[in-house]
Amino acid sequence: MGAHENAGMTSVSFHPGKHAVKVKGGSSLMEAARLAGLELQGLCGGRGSCGKCRVLVLEGKVSEPDAEERKALSPGELRRGLRLACRTRVSGKRVEALIPPQSLLERQRIQLESELNPFKPRPPVRLVRIKVEPAGPGDARSDLSRLEEALLSSRGLKVKSFDAAAARSLGETLSSGATELEVALRGDRLVAVGEPRPRRGLLGMAVDLGTSKIAVFLVDLLSGKTLDACGIMNPQLAMGDDVITRISYALEKEDGALRLQEAARDAVNRGIFTLCKNNGLEPRDILELCVVGNTAMHHLFLGLPVRRLALSPFSPVISEQLEVEARELGMEAHPGARVFFPPPLAGYVGSDHLAAIIASRMVRRGGICLLADLGTNTELALKTPGGITCCSCASGPAFEGGCLEWGMRAAPGAVEHVALGERGELEVSTIDGAAPAGLCGSGALSALASLLEAGTVDAGGRMSAADVRVREKDGEPLFRIARRGAAQDGRGRWITLSQKDVREMQKAKGAVRAGVEMLLERAGVRAEDIDLLLLAGAFGSYLDVPSVLEIAMLPPLPPRRILQVGNAAGAGAREMLCSTAARRRASRLAAGIDYLELATYPNHEMFFAAGMMLGEEAVRGFMEKWRGLKRGGGKRHQGA
Amino acid sequence: MGAHENAGMTSVSFHPGKHAVKVKGGSSLMEAARLAGLELQGLCGGRGSCGKCRVLVLEGKVSEPDAEERKALSPGELRRGLRLACRTRVSGKRVEALIPPQSLLERQRIQLESELNPFKPRPPVRLVRIKVEPAGPGDARSDLSRLEEALLSSRGLKVKSFDAAAARSLGETLSSGATELEVALRGDRLVAVGEPRPRRGLLGMAVDLGTSKIAVFLVDLLSGKTLDACGIMNPQLAMGDDVITRISYALEKEDGALRLQEAARDAVNRGIFTLCKNNGLEPRDILELCVVGNTAMHHLFLGLPVRRLALSPFSPVISEQLEVEARELGMEAHPGARVFFPPPLAGYVGSDHLAAIIASRMVRRGGICLLADLGTNTELALKTPGGITCCSCASGPAFEGGCLEWGMRAAPGAVEHVALGERGELEVSTIDGAAPAGLCGSGALSALASLLEAGTVDAGGRMSAADVRVREKDGEPLFRIARRGAAQDGRGRWITLSQKDVREMQKAKGAVRAGVEMLLERAGVRAEDIDLLLLAGAFGSYLDVPSVLEIAMLPPLPPRRILQVGNAAGAGAREMLCSTAARRRASRLAAGIDYLELATYPNHEMFFAAGMMLGEEAVRGFMEKWRGLKRGGGKRHQGA
Repeated sequence: MGAHENAGMTSVSFHPGKHAVKVKGGSSLMEAARLAGLELQGLCGGRGSCGKCRVLVLEGKVSEPDAEERKALSPGELRRGLRLACRTRVSGKRVEALIPPQSLLERQRIQLESELNPFKPRPPVRLVRIKVEPAGPGDARSDLSRLEEALLSSRGLKVKSFDAAAARSLGETLSSGATELEVALRGDRLVAVGEPRPRRGLLGMAVDLGTSKIAVFLVDLLSGKTLDACGIMNPQLAMGDDVITRISYALEKEDGALRLQEAARDAVNRGIFTLCKNNGLEPRDILELCVVGNTAMHHLFLGLPVRRLALSPFSPVISEQLEVEARELGMEAHPGARVFFPPPLAGYVGSDHLAAIIASRMVRRGGICLLADLGTNTELALKTPGGITCCSCASGPAFEGGCLEWGMRAAPGAVEHVALGERGELEVSTIDGAAPAGLCGSGALSALASLLEAGTVDAGGRMSAADVRVREKDGEPLFRIARRGAAQDGRGRWITLSQKDVREMQKAKGAVRAGVEMLLERAGVRAEDIDLLLLAGAFGSYLDVPSVLEIAMLPPLPPRRILQVGNAAGAGAREMLCSTAARRRASRLAAGIDYLELATYPNHEMFFAAGMMLGEEAVRGFMEKWRGLKRGGGKRHQGA
Repeated sequence: MGAHENAGMTSVSFHPGKHAVKVKGGSSLMEAARLAGLELQGLCGGRGSCGKCRVLVLEGKVSEPDAEERKALSPGELRRGLRLACRTRVSGKRVEALIPPQSLLERQRIQLESELNPFKPRPPVRLVRIKVEPAGPGDARSDLSRLEEALLSSRGLKVKSFDAAAARSLGETLSSGATELEVALRGDRLVAVGEPRPRRGLLGMAVDLGTSKIAVFLVDLLSGKTLDACGIMNPQLAMGDDVITRISYALEKEDGALRLQEAARDAVNRGIFTLCKNNGLEPRDILELCVVGNTAMHHLFLGLPVRRLALSPFSPVISEQLEVEARELGMEAHPGARVFFPPPLAGYVGSDHLAAIIASRMVRRGGICLLADLGTNTELALKTPGGITCCSCASGPAFEGGCLEWGMRAAPGAVEHVALGERGELEVSTIDGAAPAGLCGSGALSALASLLEAGTVDAGGRMSAADVRVREKDGEPLFRIARRGAAQDGRGRWITLSQKDVREMQKAKGAVRAGVEMLLERAGVRAEDIDLLLLAGAFGSYLDVPSVLEIAMLPPLPPRRILQVGNAAGAGAREMLCSTAARRRASRLAAGIDYLELATYPNHEMFFAAGMMLGEEAVRGFMEKWRGLKRGGGKRHQGA
């Protein structure tokens, strides 16, 4: 009977998250996604003209690309299986498709991250409503005694200690004649007292302190749901683009560390204000916070000295979790709110990476798993049966568009994708379809992949002057990608990728690949044994995986083993915000994670050199040749 | 053999503290006191001219008063047993003498208080010196991990949590290249880290927040010794003389509560600064503080609302002990220092009274014990086998010289004692022997006692116009005590005690006596069964006990059962500062102390009326008559 009912029905599974639905044959992937609760980007209402609803078809029978799709997608993209969900119709028994994070609405993306990693909230704080009768004549018991007795007799809750500020509010609230109170307890400590507010739930804020961007999430602590989120440029950028520059700023400028601390705090406070305002809340509705970030951000935010983060062995001041009163840090929240800081893992592997590890569920997943949080600094964690080892790769600013001649941040007009057309021409797409303005990290990366594919750049990274699109400037080859400006009417200057840009990209991707290879070698694991490769972070979520594989920044793995998980650090921060169990797990985990210092790893120079090669064959070839030489050399040496 | 050796030796015991020494017969009481380690006031070097070394001979054989003593002491004083220690020679086997607190040097007085109440310090914080090796290459452990490991391996101390500020100092200290650290631990929490300071011991400050005077004590937490002390006028006086006026100020003026809080905090900080400066210290050497005060002072200092302290049932916001970071209150001390606030007992019986109870050792003493802390507000605590009951008497400002026409604080020139000479003339002494300027509380009290003795004032408080020294002004009698000014050359105006002043004194003493009688009645104890009456507080320590008994402010007891114990609240604060055991004892005690609200006690009007009578006979007579009437009336009523 089941078989009969399902006649003509197609089962569609969407990754990540494995959302599965059954739809009639001939339905579009967009319809299937909507049925699965996934809201895809789409401004054109399914006409195929906006090109936002890209999905990667992994398996199953789907309609051939139509005219709209051939307009919106490059032949290279179509060849790799990219399709527009609104135009692609399913048939047959099963279809599997992967939804890249950028095709989802922002809010959906966050929800999806939460769904990926369901957890049971166990908030460290609870709100209790309680009636406290006014003191009768002759009843000289203190306000607090009467509250304590009410909590004990009507709720069975025993108060053992209290914040002075909570006692103040208690006195003020009862003085105003109120008898219905709302109190917050952290364990057996009274931290907040007030009149009951219209039911808003128990709210908290999770903060991911990134080097360039600060993400703030408003979270319902009882459900674990993210209610809203906002991103703010980190104003510390004015005091240095990267961690090293900021540490120098902290050490060399007068009040440098204080100014960095205040800049970050003010930005976080702005984020909290914005989220509160947009959701009809006040900062005093926020009773709990969790802040993650790289170790330098963490130290600066807490006012811890950063001098030794710049010097080998790069030891942090603390690698322990910490709970601080929000007030002590000048954070906008209830006076009784606490801020939880998960432990940093090492000088260059921060609590944000621990949060990502927590959110990725690496520990619970079977098999070998590699997590890469890509950015100016790339943190890697490899889980094998032997445990978790992490390391830090100095990938530099290239991934974020920095240090490239035409580099820019991922903003409208940034070239975000470059593909090779059928006749070798470049197909360029920009963010929001705006006129080309520059190259963001993923654009530069896919441009490099295309040039490599076209043979214009060789495995060593040398740009060939044979390509007609290559010009020369100051004796250096320069590849013309697109004209800058509103229309490609021949008036704008050329957006180019120079030989130097290629070298920067090589260094960045080489650092990551070298890190991966050293982790694998240390663990005695082969690249092809990796069961799951998780790409986290803003860049990791938006980059074009096929391009990444083309240039061999990561080991060659089937796309299904590669998962772009978005802001995993933020997801982990939200989980630790809501769950004391997650906090305990994180601290236990942190104590057991091994840190691998790449700069002192044997033959690290070889790994870096091999990592810089473009294309998998070249990387492998370099390593094998070197190992062969080494073995041969070793034998000769032994024989001598 | 012992008897032979002791031939011609006199055993001299000094109260309070029962310091006993053996001296040759014929030695002066001054010599004996010095041998006992008691340093008496004395500016004249034993010539008897300064009159400072007054002692009360209780028992034994002593020399007759010489010419110097007859000059320095009035016949009335001599009659009561008062002598100058420097001129009085002992003989016979045993002599017992009582040293009034004002005859001791300030520092000695404090020491004596500590000796009276020896305790074993058990400070809540400890200082540990520890060597932390610099991190070697490849050692990426955090600073805190290395410190924790050093503490565990070399001292067996486990750190479980830490202040963010301590982590900051740790990072800074190790960054500066130091390897020898001095750290402070509160239980298993790390609260302070720094380079070792020259050995100063572990220091704290105890603060007694009085309505008029703030006393600050510098204490060595390891020995419990008071190293130095200072007194500061409470700047809140500018915002109201008494507690009620200040509460009104807090409620009615804009930022009134905040200004009161800041005034007290700034004064305490000045005291801490002064003590640190005078002892070669810095505020950061102070790791622990303990603050006691009446409940209004306590609430204002902590920023707790005081509205309901002014309204029946006068319930405080908290009656629990509290530990706050010094920083949170803006107090000058180490950033990791905590301030301990013992629990207030009721709206008008503060933590200062609890401290006095602790210091008085009431609980451990056998028998029935009454503690009176005399001042603008007088707190009483009665210990019987049934437990401790406390109450508060609104004695008003008369004891501190307030509200009297010629009233002044106890400052040089204040008439501090008035005695009746043999021919009925008044013998007036002033503080420091300066020209008479006004009447302080004890001066007014002894003036009233003299007028009562002379019959110029009757038991009801009416001043008789029969005395030639009584003048009339605006229809009211006025007693001339002394001429104001440098010399009594007939030019100065007369310092007088008016009929209205007598009424004020009656109200003040009546409130105290009424409180005592209600406590006794409630406990079912007779006044004569009181084994020990302890008089505490500045006024309680300086007042003239015979005058107090003359006017029947307190029940008639032999002088030996009355002990003036000085600033017992300060002594208790110092003990709780140094000892976690004392803190626990105090909290247990506070929970068990019964509070008696006098305003709702049956027949309280009768007790107040009886208490206002002057002279023991009149007080007793009033109460007996009233009780007789009551019994008679009751019977008649029942019979009707």
